[in-house]
Amino acid sequence: MTRWTLYSAPGTCALATHIALHEAGVEFDLVRLDFAAHEQSGAPYLALNPKGRVPALVTDAGVLTETPALLAFIAQAFPQAQLAPLHDTFAFARMQEFNSYLASTVHVAHAHRRRGARWADDPAAIEAMRLKVPQTMTACARVLEAQLTGAWVLGADYSVADAYLFTIARWFEGDGVDMQAFARLRAHRERVGQRAAVCRAIDEAQG
Amino acid sequence: MTRWTLYSAPGTCALATHIALHEAGVEFDLVRLDFAAHEQSGAPYLALNPKGRVPALVTDAGVLTETPALLAFIAQAFPQAQLAPLHDTFAFARMQEFNSYLASTVHVAHAHRRRGARWADDPAAIEAMRLKVPQTMTACARVLEAQLTGAWVLGADYSVADAYLFTIARWFEGDGVDMQAFARLRAHRERVGQRAAVCRAIDEAQG
Repeated sequence: MTRWTLYSAPGTCALATHIALHEAGVEFDLVRLDFAAHEQSGAPYLALNPKGRVPALVTDAGVLTETPALLAFIAQAFPQAQLAPLHDTFAFARMQEFNSYLASTVHVAHAHRRRGARWADDPAAIEAMRLKVPQTMTACARVLEAQLTGAWVLGADYSVADAYLFTIARWFEGDGVDMQAFARLRAHRERVGQRAAVCRAIDEAQG
Repeated sequence: MTRWTLYSAPGTCALATHIALHEAGVEFDLVRLDFAAHEQSGAPYLALNPKGRVPALVTDAGVLTETPALLAFIAQAFPQAQLAPLHDTFAFARMQEFNSYLASTVHVAHAHRRRGARWADDPAAIEAMRLKVPQTMTACARVLEAQLTGAWVLGADYSVADAYLFTIARWFEGDGVDMQAFARLRAHRERVGQRAAVCRAIDEAQG
């Protein structure tokens, strides 16, 4: 197997895939794109990922993008790491449901804080989007808090969904969410943050 | 197995799951919510799906939501229907990547036409979002057109990703996309629209 390469950027959702790769024990190269220099929209990166976003994982089979797809892929490709309920179709679907909600609703709500220009040109509209982020992200936190009934997202067993929730939950304070109201989310973040794979990924992602 | 129930609404992405259930040969009950009467935010439905969205599939194992999760679940639960490359981890990830892009980017771009109030309160901002939809949806169509290199999304074999693309591609004209520029997307829509499971789902969804 050719050595894989993960394209990432500090503070982005690419951290979830980064964590999952370490949890699975994969040896890979990390490339941190410089968003301030717009490296994600430069020709070299667009040739690799025409969508101009991170994460992108270069594997021996091809380039893969989209966090929920990457997380399920890593769990399936390295079953010995037990990062997903691979032998229980409904439990696997529950994990995917959780990841899909993070990607399509929570991450999207968050993106309206700094990436409003994706959806409107008028600066006043972009500012109006930014103003509503504390409200939308708090509503998301409420949904997530209600679902966190065990130590991990799926209950008794850690999965890639925990890495993804951890990654997105780090954005809450910056998005204006009062975390005092969300004891389970706080405890979960602390629990995940103590894992060796997570500490290593955070160190590498920021560096 | 208890008979399943799909909660849907006309014109929504629930059609993709509806199609997949018919492709898999599942017998199920269909409940069409009346969005004009705000049934999706009424207490009975919120007790079932606190997120107040469609689709929601009531199975004997529990209620499942989020289209990418539902599509992969149906494909895995009914392997004889061959709705996903279940024995090729990377090909399955490619399908998930495609579905995830539809959910997190394309559907989200579309939602800014009529659901802008999710992300801003100011009516002028909501109007500014609506105005940009033809541009964002055309950009999405360009990405999708470039990926459609075979008869189906994954190439030679039909999968749930085709049902999902078909569902979302029906929104393009309404979103202001000039479909003349997208011959592959037009041909794909026609190809999928001729399938018996698709015709049946459309009939039932609208009725």
